[in-house]
Amino acid sequence: MVIVGAGFGGLTCARALKRAAVDVLLVDANNYHLFTPLLYQVASSLLDPSQIAQPVRALIRPLPNCDFMLARATGADFERRVLVTDHGEVPYDYLVLAAGSESNYFGNASVQEYAIGLKALPEGLALRNWVLSQFESAQYVADESARRQLLTFAVVGGGPTGVEYAGALQELIHLVLRKDYRNLDLGQSRVVLLEGAAAILGAFDPGLRAAAVRSLRGKGVEVWFDALVKTVDDDGVELEDGRRLAAGTVVWTAGVKASALGGAMELPAGRGGRVAVDGFMNPAGLANVFVIGDLAAYEQDGQPLPMLIPVAMQEAKHAASVIRALVEGAIPRDFRYSDPGIMATIGRNSAVAQLGAVKLSGFPGWVMWLAVHLINVVSLRAKLFVLAEWAVDYLRFDRPIRLIVRALNPPRWERPPASAGRARGAPRRRRGTSGS
Amino acid sequence: MVIVGAGFGGLTCARALKRAAVDVLLVDANNYHLFTPLLYQVASSLLDPSQIAQPVRALIRPLPNCDFMLARATGADFERRVLVTDHGEVPYDYLVLAAGSESNYFGNASVQEYAIGLKALPEGLALRNWVLSQFESAQYVADESARRQLLTFAVVGGGPTGVEYAGALQELIHLVLRKDYRNLDLGQSRVVLLEGAAAILGAFDPGLRAAAVRSLRGKGVEVWFDALVKTVDDDGVELEDGRRLAAGTVVWTAGVKASALGGAMELPAGRGGRVAVDGFMNPAGLANVFVIGDLAAYEQDGQPLPMLIPVAMQEAKHAASVIRALVEGAIPRDFRYSDPGIMATIGRNSAVAQLGAVKLSGFPGWVMWLAVHLINVVSLRAKLFVLAEWAVDYLRFDRPIRLIVRALNPPRWERPPASAGRARGAPRRRRGTSGS
Repeated sequence: MVIVGAGFGGLTCARALKRAAVDVLLVDANNYHLFTPLLYQVASSLLDPSQIAQPVRALIRPLPNCDFMLARATGADFERRVLVTDHGEVPYDYLVLAAGSESNYFGNASVQEYAIGLKALPEGLALRNWVLSQFESAQYVADESARRQLLTFAVVGGGPTGVEYAGALQELIHLVLRKDYRNLDLGQSRVVLLEGAAAILGAFDPGLRAAAVRSLRGKGVEVWFDALVKTVDDDGVELEDGRRLAAGTVVWTAGVKASALGGAMELPAGRGGRVAVDGFMNPAGLANVFVIGDLAAYEQDGQPLPMLIPVAMQEAKHAASVIRALVEGAIPRDFRYSDPGIMATIGRNSAVAQLGAVKLSGFPGWVMWLAVHLINVVSLRAKLFVLAEWAVDYLRFDRPIRLIVRALNPPRWERPPASAGRARGAPRRRRGTSGS
Repeated sequence: MVIVGAGFGGLTCARALKRAAVDVLLVDANNYHLFTPLLYQVASSLLDPSQIAQPVRALIRPLPNCDFMLARATGADFERRVLVTDHGEVPYDYLVLAAGSESNYFGNASVQEYAIGLKALPEGLALRNWVLSQFESAQYVADESARRQLLTFAVVGGGPTGVEYAGALQELIHLVLRKDYRNLDLGQSRVVLLEGAAAILGAFDPGLRAAAVRSLRGKGVEVWFDALVKTVDDDGVELEDGRRLAAGTVVWTAGVKASALGGAMELPAGRGGRVAVDGFMNPAGLANVFVIGDLAAYEQDGQPLPMLIPVAMQEAKHAASVIRALVEGAIPRDFRYSDPGIMATIGRNSAVAQLGAVKLSGFPGWVMWLAVHLINVVSLRAKLFVLAEWAVDYLRFDRPIRLIVRALNPPRWERPPASAGRARGAPRRRRGTSGS
């Protein structure tokens, strides 16, 4: 059987099938599993990529029935039971689709062109490089309004990613970079969180939302409400209501949509491109195809489940149990999601957490956030290293990973592994020309 | 005064001027100082970039008279006493040139096009991505000769970098990747060290050279002597004597030359483009210009000093002492290099070290190598992290940084900080198009 996607859904499903009588092939376009909740910390110079990304092959070593294939899934032929990838066709008996989600620009070309997303590891690294470059540039810009613009960072979207990145960026600037740029007046720097609705963190309790706004503002982050982005350009952001923000950086966290894979496979797409599934995680009419995680829309109590890691992991375990039941000739059960709660951090000593009836904010919320995230970071090495980085940041107000660096044209970057016919003759790119 | 280059020469010089009555501006095209002796460990998935690269601004924080400018020096007007950069002109009273060296392809266009250098951090990351991609590709190549070619790695140059990378790559493949690619016969993988002369590690004692060859061969690295590269292409390497090696990867460590900055400044260039300097580190006729490190050629006992870190650091301290003497109206002394020794490692438990009369190889050499490199890694954080990575590698035969990842088009990558006139209108690149 084949699992598409090595994120939380796909990896959890592979693990849950460890002792099942199936051979599992995990297919992903990247060779790593990404701990997405901490991506914003890579983008704010706090963590290294290797602390939130682990090679898939290392993670599946304990699974004797699991192999990995570095390829991008592009479609499927459900009749013939083959998955189509940029590396050729892969036959399956059971197919699990856990391709996740991507940034949603809602068709706004100016956003897509001028804003930077924060969903994938290359975006996190790009954002780190970009933000640090803004300060280097500002250092030598004489014109004050140009300098203020360079030092203004608009973060669009008041969900957890936007809130967490805005808080982390503000602290990077005022606790760390302050010491780097002694000749620069960092009082001119602004981090502005643009939320389209009347409240940030819409999924949280109103009391926690208010606490988050207070905490952000206490740290110096500006929070604009009813701020719907109309266009983004070189000079910054223009809002629907006519307000403008001159900003050198626009980060887009205002929406995600399901991976385009569902559409490419002509599966029935609902809101945000998600595929409706039944209690066995099957899309209509396909009993050996399972869709889980952000790509799936499972309705529970009249509402589709949110696009969250715990949903993906529980759906993955459920899909694995259905597959085991089918293999063993048993009767599978229906799915039911059990909500462990949600949380978001706003920076040092401050977070909001909503765990059933328990609602925490400020320092207690932050301690809870730290514990939950550290426990869930994937490997022991990453746990220790992440803890060490957090300690350096917390105790010394320092983030040593302020590097502007990028791999030189890895010639095969974004290209699939060569298939048999293409291996020898595959053109190699010239050094010094683009590899992307 | 201005120092060009934040490598070992430039940084040491800035530090040596900490208490001098001068204002120092350190200029570099990268925002980090690179611990080059461990770059091959980034390229072999053992270390993270942040463990061998530190932000220059972090390193100069203890220097109250030192500031940093992210810019690429391109020339100078010695009459008007200005340094020319891609960011505009920078006036100086004293100018220290520590621009280092770059890969020397000896005018061979095919090498430049098809081989990967191992001198700069982006190259190390590119090589890591590339090597890991070869294994992913090989996994799905049916044709055996094509697969063997993908799994053959030619390392050109038997100096310390080539020897160290060949050993590290061989161990990555046979101790770590072996566990990742269970379906791949890694007996088909070859690491071949191509040395143009009759011996590797030419700067070492003959007994140590022989020990290094034995150690490399003992680990399974093939060592070819008298192997002068004629051309490199998609299929591998062709040697001057007609031998061919079918290889999917060619790493070039066979030569360095001084930075092109000396030529751009029309300073008298000797062999390898190095600038001849006198005992005050001045090129002929320029008493307020100092050239140090790989860019300089100081003759001692009839021989130019080698391009080594200890030479750069001692020259840097000497140039600083001359500048202090000039500022204080004292008479500077002539330079004399004191050789602390040389060493190179071949992988676990094996290194060669030549420290005056003391010659170590095998395990004792390796312990010495470890100690010296760990002591010299720049920051305490990096020391601890490097030690932890080495411990994981040594005890668990694992290298967790097997990531194929690259920053998404950081739009300003390789572009200088905007100058005053260009700041606002600077075009931003479109997401998805090249940033390089």
